[in-house]
Amino acid sequence: MIVYLTRKERFNAAHKLWVTEWSEEKNIEVFGKCANVNWHGHNYVLEVTVKGTPDPQTGFIFDAKELSKLIKEEVLDHLDHRNLNLDVKFIPFNIQPTTENLVVIIWNQLESKLTTCKLHCVKLQETENISAEYYG
Amino acid sequence: MIVYLTRKERFNAAHKLWVTEWSEEKNIEVFGKCANVNWHGHNYVLEVTVKGTPDPQTGFIFDAKELSKLIKEEVLDHLDHRNLNLDVKFIPFNIQPTTENLVVIIWNQLESKLTTCKLHCVKLQETENISAEYYG
Amino acid sequence: MIVYLTRKERFNAAHKLWVTEWSEEKNIEVFGKCANVNWHGHNYVLEVTVKGTPDPQTGFIFDAKELSKLIKEEVLDHLDHRNLNLDVKFIPFNIQPTTENLVVIIWNQLESKLTTCKLHCVKLQETENISAEYYG
Amino acid sequence: MIVYLTRKERFNAAHKLWVTEWSEEKNIEVFGKCANVNWHGHNYVLEVTVKGTPDPQTGFIFDAKELSKLIKEEVLDHLDHRNLNLDVKFIPFNIQPTTENLVVIIWNQLESKLTTCKLHCVKLQETENISAEYYG
Amino acid sequence: MIVYLTRKERFNAAHKLWVTEWSEEKNIEVFGKCANVNWHGHNYVLEVTVKGTPDPQTGFIFDAKELSKLIKEEVLDHLDHRNLNLDVKFIPFNIQPTTENLVVIIWNQLESKLTTCKLHCVKLQETENISAEYYG
Amino acid sequence: MIVYLTRKERFNAAHKLWVTEWSEEKNIEVFGKCANVNWHGHNYVLEVTVKGTPDPQTGFIFDAKELSKLIKEEVLDHLDHRNLNLDVKFIPFNIQPTTENLVVIIWNQLESKLTTCKLHCVKLQETENISAEYYG
Repeated sequence: MIVYLTRKERFNAAHKLWVTEWSEEKNIEVFGKCANVNWHGHNYVLEVTVKGTPDPQTGFIFDAKELSKLIKEEVLDHLDHRNLNLDVKFIPFNIQPTTENLVVIIWNQLESKLTTCKLHCVKLQETENISAEYYG
Repeated sequence: MIVYLTRKERFNAAHKLWVTEWSEEKNIEVFGKCANVNWHGHNYVLEVTVKGTPDPQTGFIFDAKELSKLIKEEVLDHLDHRNLNLDVKFIPFNIQPTTENLVVIIWNQLESKLTTCKLHCVKLQETENISAEYYG
Repeated sequence: MIVYLTRKERFNAAHKLWVTEWSEEKNIEVFGKCANVNWHGHNYVLEVTVKGTPDPQTGFIFDAKELSKLIKEEVLDHLDHRNLNLDVKFIPFNIQPTTENLVVIIWNQLESKLTTCKLHCVKLQETENISAEYYG
Repeated sequence: MIVYLTRKERFNAAHKLWVTEWSEEKNIEVFGKCANVNWHGHNYVLEVTVKGTPDPQTGFIFDAKELSKLIKEEVLDHLDHRNLNLDVKFIPFNIQPTTENLVVIIWNQLESKLTTCKLHCVKLQETENISAEYYG
Repeated sequence: MIVYLTRKERFNAAHKLWVTEWSEEKNIEVFGKCANVNWHGHNYVLEVTVKGTPDPQTGFIFDAKELSKLIKEEVLDHLDHRNLNLDVKFIPFNIQPTTENLVVIIWNQLESKLTTCKLHCVKLQETENISAEYYG
Repeated sequence: MIVYLTRKERFNAAHKLWVTEWSEEKNIEVFGKCANVNWHGHNYVLEVTVKGTPDPQTGFIFDAKELSKLIKEEVLDHLDHRNLNLDVKFIPFNIQPTTENLVVIIWNQLESKLTTCKLHCVKLQETENISAEYYG
C-alpha cells in the first residue's frame, strides 16, 4: 500500500539567466528580461513528495514536521533570501538557475537523506504561471 | 482514449493523533501539538479523480454533479463537521486519522461505488502545506 | 503619510457552537452541524493590519518579523492546535467561538501590545467562504 | 534526465451542453443548468506540461515564453472570449464542449507543433471544483 | 461594537458588452474581445459583507447559512448559468453587464432584504485580475 | 454613485534592505536575511483600485484594459525583472524598497496620470504573508 505525502515550503531568491561565454546582446536575445544584469527574483513555492507505507501505529509514512525540518536544512537554509547564481555552494557556477535545473539540484540534495521513505517528486513553482517537476 | 476528471470538495473536521497504548508524554513526544487532548481541526480539501473515455454523445466520463453527489453520500455526510476519531463508523478506532490514512479510507469508501468509470486518485489537503495522495 | 501593513498567519483549531442553557435540540436547530457534540475544526487564516508612517531610515512602519512574533506570542501560541471552547484562557466560557467573536477577542489580545504603530484591522477567515473583520 | 515544465494560461469563454438530437426536456434532464439555451460561461485555467532534458547551456527544456506564444497562437487566440459551441473551427459541431472533450481537442492542437520537446499533459480547470487531464 | 461578516459565493454566466445604438465596428473598437457577438463568459466570485453587533448568545451578527440562502434566492438563482444580457429580469436591457454595474445591481437586490443587520459591501471578481466593489 | 474597480498585475524583482550609513553587522541585525549582500527577490502582486461613477453607456468607470496599459507603462515596465535598489529611476537611492515604501512610490507614479477617475488604493503583496496598502 503506497501513499504519497507532499510538503509545501516557500523561499525567496534572486537570480538571472546568463551564459558567461555569450555577449550581453546574445544573453538578452535568448533570455529576454531574465538576463537583466542587476538580477531579478521570485517567491518560489517548493513541493516535495515522498512515498511509502503508513506506519500501522502512527499513520505516518514520514513525519511531516521532520520532512519540513529536512527540507529546511538541506534546501531552504541555502536558497532562501539568497542569490541563486552566487550564493549557493551546490549550484555549480556554470549551471543556469532555471526552474528545470533547480528541481534536479533540489532532488539531488534530498534523495540520499531520506532513509525511511522514498523521494517521489520535486516540484518548484517560479511564478503564478511557470513550474517544473522532476521524478528522478 | 483515457481522460481524467477531478472533482474538488471540502469538509471541516476535528481530530487528534493519539495512540491509546502510549502515555500522554509519549504521544506528545511523537505527535507534538497534534496530540492535544481536547482536539484540534482542519478545513480539508478533497480531490477525487476518476478516469474513463468520454461518452460520444454527452462528452462526460462521469457526470460531475453525480460524482459530487456520490462523494457527498459516501464521504462528506460522514466526515463533515465531525470528529474523525469518534464519529465515523468506517474509521476504525485504532487507526490514526492522519492524511495518509484518510486517503486510503476515503478510497475504500468510493472505489466499489463507481461502476461506469474507474477511481484513479484520492488527494486530501489537510493544511496549506500538507497533502497526501493514494492511487489504489 | 499613513501606510497599512498586513501580516497573514494561520492556525488550526477545534470548536463547536453550543449554548449551555439550551437543549441539544435547540442547539442543533440554531447552529446545525456546527453544534456537533464531539467538535469539528478549521484551518483559520488570520490577517492583522497595522498602520503608521514608514520610518525614514528603515522603511518599516513595524518590522513584519516582529509583528509575526507578537501575533505568535499573543494569539497563535494560545489558539493553534487547541480547542477554542475549552483550552484558551482569554476566551470566556460563555462566549461562542464564532468568527465574529474571535476577531474581537484577537483584537483585544493585540491592541495594547502595539506601541510604535496602531492596530487597524483583525480579519479571520474560518472557511473558504466565511470571514469576519473588526476595526476596533 | 527527464524534467517536466508546466505553463499556466487563462481564457474566458461561453458554452452550453446540448445534444441537438434531443428535446429541450431531455437536454435539461441530462445537463441541468448547463443546458441553458442562452449559454453560460467560465474562466478556464489551462495548464500545458511538456517534458524533455534541460539544455546544458540554457537550462531550458523549452523556453517558457515560446511555449506561452505557441499556446496563444494555437489555442487561446481561438478560444478566448469565444463561444465554444459556435466560434471555434477545430471544435466539431456535434462535440460537446465538456472539460473532458476540451482537453483532448487542445492536446490535438498542440502535440504536432512541439518538435524540440514532447507534450506530456493538458489540464483544464473549468470551475473552482472541476478539472480534467489528458496524457495522449 | 461593529463587526463585518463576509460570505463568498460563486456563479458562472455568459455576457457580452454591446451598445445596441452602436455599429459592430464601434462596439469592437470600444469593448474589444468583450464585444464578441456570440458571447463569452466568466466564473464570477461574489463576496457580500454585512455589518452589525454579534448577538451575545449566538455570537452571530447574521447566520452565515441564512446569508448564503438569501444570496442564493435573490442573486445566484437568477444569475448562475445564465446569460446576463438576456436572462435576468432585474438587469435592464440597456445596462451593460460590466463588473461595475453588476455590483450595484446585486447591492439593490440584497439591501432591502437584510433587516437584522446592514449591507456593507458587494464585491464581484470577474477574472483573476479584475474586480469591483460597491458600498451603497 | 461611487464604484471601486481593482486591477491586479504582477512583477518579479530583486532587492535588498540596506542602510548605507550602517555597518554590515547593523544591517543584518535590523533587516536579517533581507540584508543579504547579493540580493534576494519576490513575485510582487500589485492591486490598483480606482473609483468613479460608471459611464451610463459603457458601464465603465475606467476601461480595465486601459488601466492595465497605464500600470504597465508607469510601473511594470520600470520594476518588472529589475533590481529595485539599482535600476529604477523613480526609487531614490536612499529609500529602502520595503513594501510600505513601494506602495507610496507606485501611488505617486499613477495618481497624476488618472484624469477620468480617481486613484483610491495601491496594494502590494510581497510574499504570501506580507502586504501593504496606501490610500494617498
